Amino acid sequence: MAQVNPTVGDLEGNSEIIIDALCRAREMRVDLLTFPELAVTGYPPEDLLLKPQFVERNLESLDRIVGESSGVNLVIGFVDRDSDLYNAAAVVANGEIAGIYHKIYLPNYGVFDENRYFSRGREVQIYRIAGVNVGISICEDIWQETGPAGIQSASGAELLVNISASPYHYGKGNLRLEILRARARDNLSAVAYNNLVGGQDELVFDGNSLLIDQGGNLLARGRQFGEDLVIADLDVDSIFRDRLHDPRWRDGGQILAERKEDIKRIEISGRALGGVDPKLPERHVDNLGYPSEVYDALVLGTRDYVRKNGFEKVVVGLSGGIDSSLVATIAVDALGRENVTGVWMPSMYSSSESEQYARDLTEKLGIRLITINIGKIFGAYIDELSGEFSGTGEGVAEENLQSRTRGNLLMALSNKFGWLVLATGNKSEMATGYSTLYGDMCGGLAVIKDVPKTMVYELSRYRNETGGNPVIPEGIIDREPSAELRPGQLDTDSLPPYAVLDPILEAYVEEDRGIDDIVSMGFDEETVRRVIGLVDRSEFKRRQSTPGIKITPRAFGKDRRLPITNRFVP
Amino acid sequence: MAQVNPTVGDLEGNSEIIIDALCRAREMRVDLLTFPELAVTGYPPEDLLLKPQFVERNLESLDRIVGESSGVNLVIGFVDRDSDLYNAAAVVANGEIAGIYHKIYLPNYGVFDENRYFSRGREVQIYRIAGVNVGISICEDIWQETGPAGIQSASGAELLVNISASPYHYGKGNLRLEILRARARDNLSAVAYNNLVGGQDELVFDGNSLLIDQGGNLLARGRQFGEDLVIADLDVDSIFRDRLHDPRWRDGGQILAERKEDIKRIEISGRALGGVDPKLPERHVDNLGYPSEVYDALVLGTRDYVRKNGFEKVVVGLSGGIDSSLVATIAVDALGRENVTGVWMPSMYSSSESEQYARDLTEKLGIRLITINIGKIFGAYIDELSGEFSGTGEGVAEENLQSRTRGNLLMALSNKFGWLVLATGNKSEMATGYSTLYGDMCGGLAVIKDVPKTMVYELSRYRNETGGNPVIPEGIIDREPSAELRPGQLDTDSLPPYAVLDPILEAYVEEDRGIDDIVSMGFDEETVRRVIGLVDRSEFKRRQSTPGIKITPRAFGKDRRLPITNRFVP
Repeated sequence: MAQVNPTVGDLEGNSEIIIDALCRAREMRVDLLTFPELAVTGYPPEDLLLKPQFVERNLESLDRIVGESSGVNLVIGFVDRDSDLYNAAAVVANGEIAGIYHKIYLPNYGVFDENRYFSRGREVQIYRIAGVNVGISICEDIWQETGPAGIQSASGAELLVNISASPYHYGKGNLRLEILRARARDNLSAVAYNNLVGGQDELVFDGNSLLIDQGGNLLARGRQFGEDLVIADLDVDSIFRDRLHDPRWRDGGQILAERKEDIKRIEISGRALGGVDPKLPERHVDNLGYPSEVYDALVLGTRDYVRKNGFEKVVVGLSGGIDSSLVATIAVDALGRENVTGVWMPSMYSSSESEQYARDLTEKLGIRLITINIGKIFGAYIDELSGEFSGTGEGVAEENLQSRTRGNLLMALSNKFGWLVLATGNKSEMATGYSTLYGDMCGGLAVIKDVPKTMVYELSRYRNETGGNPVIPEGIIDREPSAELRPGQLDTDSLPPYAVLDPILEAYVEEDRGIDDIVSMGFDEETVRRVIGLVDRSEFKRRQSTPGIKITPRAFGKDRRLPITNRFVP
Repeated sequence: MAQVNPTVGDLEGNSEIIIDALCRAREMRVDLLTFPELAVTGYPPEDLLLKPQFVERNLESLDRIVGESSGVNLVIGFVDRDSDLYNAAAVVANGEIAGIYHKIYLPNYGVFDENRYFSRGREVQIYRIAGVNVGISICEDIWQETGPAGIQSASGAELLVNISASPYHYGKGNLRLEILRARARDNLSAVAYNNLVGGQDELVFDGNSLLIDQGGNLLARGRQFGEDLVIADLDVDSIFRDRLHDPRWRDGGQILAERKEDIKRIEISGRALGGVDPKLPERHVDNLGYPSEVYDALVLGTRDYVRKNGFEKVVVGLSGGIDSSLVATIAVDALGRENVTGVWMPSMYSSSESEQYARDLTEKLGIRLITINIGKIFGAYIDELSGEFSGTGEGVAEENLQSRTRGNLLMALSNKFGWLVLATGNKSEMATGYSTLYGDMCGGLAVIKDVPKTMVYELSRYRNETGGNPVIPEGIIDREPSAELRPGQLDTDSLPPYAVLDPILEAYVEEDRGIDDIVSMGFDEETVRRVIGLVDRSEFKRRQSTPGIKITPRAFGKDRRLPITNRFVP
């Protein structure tokens, strides 16, 4: 299983990545090499699929790969076309396309829009590759209990290959493992699940490819959040033996015969190359804890967003608070400290502790800190607005002006030096609108946009506890959160404590629970109503917000599509 | 046909609108009153549909409407639910639900995501209402030549009712008319096409409901861009007579019999009320020219976005150029001059002509003009950045700072006084990224975001030529476009002339044509490559851009979903 990291639209570059993996696998004399779903185009290509020349060039890339494939059998994801488009897997043997499978179950929920582009496949197939009966399917196909896996196994498939582009959210690795174990056991078949790896806009594909035997045991696992080439020997004879002793195979002849009618069989005459290097690479098969997983997802998502968009360096506004401190730390881990610049932009409301924390952090991270005082600029705004504002009290307009002045300064540095601005808002702020549009929301990537504030603390503690040196000063973790936009301001002036807020947000945003339901979880009704009101009234801000990395089951962005104009009170 | 303007999520308010129309129709003794697709919820409700309590409350609203419906037969759009959700039409008679139709063809392209929410219907029905055989379908169903219209007519339907929520783009009215004329003629049936009216985020539903006889003749038409109650008598006997003389009905017995098996028939015993007021309201059936249509769409879209989101007043930054002048004019037409404030924000690069034009415009529109000079604020930024910027030449960073200073001032006025900021960028700028993120792109609504620059001129001329008094000074229309962010700057320094740019953009953005194809239209290859490069590299800006009103076949926003991270070169 070639767990590769292609880039959407980079047909040239992706072909090279694929051919490189193919050459390495050929040297290792593998019988079958698989690639992820839509490996040729990158996933998801979105409306690029509506461009005929894009589909054409993807077919040319496939041709090029096929031309380089002699001596190795491949399963590779690409876009197939007749009068419709298909999310397809080409089976390549002896330097030719032996057959093509079309994805049957097209996800059209959450972040997925596959019905927008693809027609569904109508044919289930079995390939005999290197002496083994192989059923091919694509991603969602194997999540469906009634999908092709059952028909394929009942018709003789011993190995179920599933090529996938399954985006990460926390806990999903376990979910996949359980589902694939069930598919393997239920069908007495081995399962090779080849997932994509890499960041693509708001999504991170975590790799974590799985090879599972017919008993549901994990044989091998690809790296999580890194490229990999997972090579293993399968004991196919044991599948035959297990089936001999299983009543479903021994006695279920009639059902199997019925099912067999549905299937197309393709014989691949390519010689079985056999004889893989017996030294299996060691794989960690333990389940990682979630702060570690989420942290790694954010690092990969940041690195790939920055690099794949052609940037080298990033800039982060540092407030001395935990959000910007965590973002700067992730940026350093993703890009190296030489590529990260911090900017401290004090106003008259900034505390000396904040400045000290920002300095401490940058020293520990070893990054450069620029200081720009916003006082005079803010003063100039206030002077020019004094006529219009006369007779009004200070309020949100003045607070937002400070935040927007900082945003402008970061963007000016970005424009001048080509640094990508990392926005530092977390999911709790994004949900409640406790952030300034065009102010602290500025940036090319919002690293922790999908991380609730309580998880921001967990990730910060996790990062401090690993790798030897705590980089985030403890004082930052311990202090009360404040935007420091007016004297003595605290987040809790406007919001419930985060330990209360975050579970309400999770229930409302990620689980679509109504007010009564959330109140019955034990929360104060007035608080629940207030929080939900904040969420609903902030849709206009989120619509213009910076893309961020999805790490929860439901992120903002294309995962959650709500109207701005909306009078529904839940 | 009740051509109503509901608000998404306003289940309470929408019920009242519906009950009000129902009472008026009852007084006029109509036999059948129809409402648009999803009239109960507003369209499109998007992910509100994932909230069980939203669907529940929509069912409660329907119950309430049914309870008020005695004495009038209704067809009304709502969300039906069993184990799945359906985009549904309830047929209501005698104060009860007589039957429910589920939409069969679910659009999942362009701005539509109906497969995300709904399951497709499986049943075609005919209702006998007030002595007339009526086939019901929903929106997309009647666009399909093989849809229910054919089966329904062949099985005896004399009237095809289609309830719709069809968003406007220029030319779509004609397209609908031609398709519905063809359906009527092909099926020798009358067609009552009841479309939604009103603005919803980026969409404008233009009403323009159509009543067409079995010969394809337009009998009545609802207002375009306004609410209406379209009442007409149908000569059902003439349908019977026409069919008697038509070989498809006289001789096609066998085919009809076959088809008849598919259909569910529901008899509504409600008395035919009959005897509509014979004075049909006069309707304009002429096809409007497109500047007029587009202008009206922008006015309605602006009014509904502002009002439905609870705003009274708007503010527009005026540069003395045509884009901001047109936006201010549309705002005045949509909201009244007392609700529009202009802001003139000169810098050292602003010309005296620009100031004069901005003043002339506000005088002609009768709106207030605020002047805020950005020179000192800009100077303060430059002072504070001088250390970091030392040794660099002036460039895009300094230009953007000016634009962002203006954006901040508008947002400060918005925050202080509750005015919604109207962004003034046009589609040509939005396509090429010739605009400043967090600067001139700031705002709650981007009124002309989908209007190409060449059309901005046409709309301005159109507005000046109608209504007696030209409000946009001719000098604004005649002058060379300039952002005035550096001395002597002209748009043509960075972009091809708009007469060249706009057709290239249309071919690339709206028609997905490749470079070769566009060059073969007669454009210079280097220019085409440059323009396409600009479009592709600006995706990150568009992702954070203000929502705008769709008036072309493909707008930016959910109509065109491209990855930011994208290395495809077309």
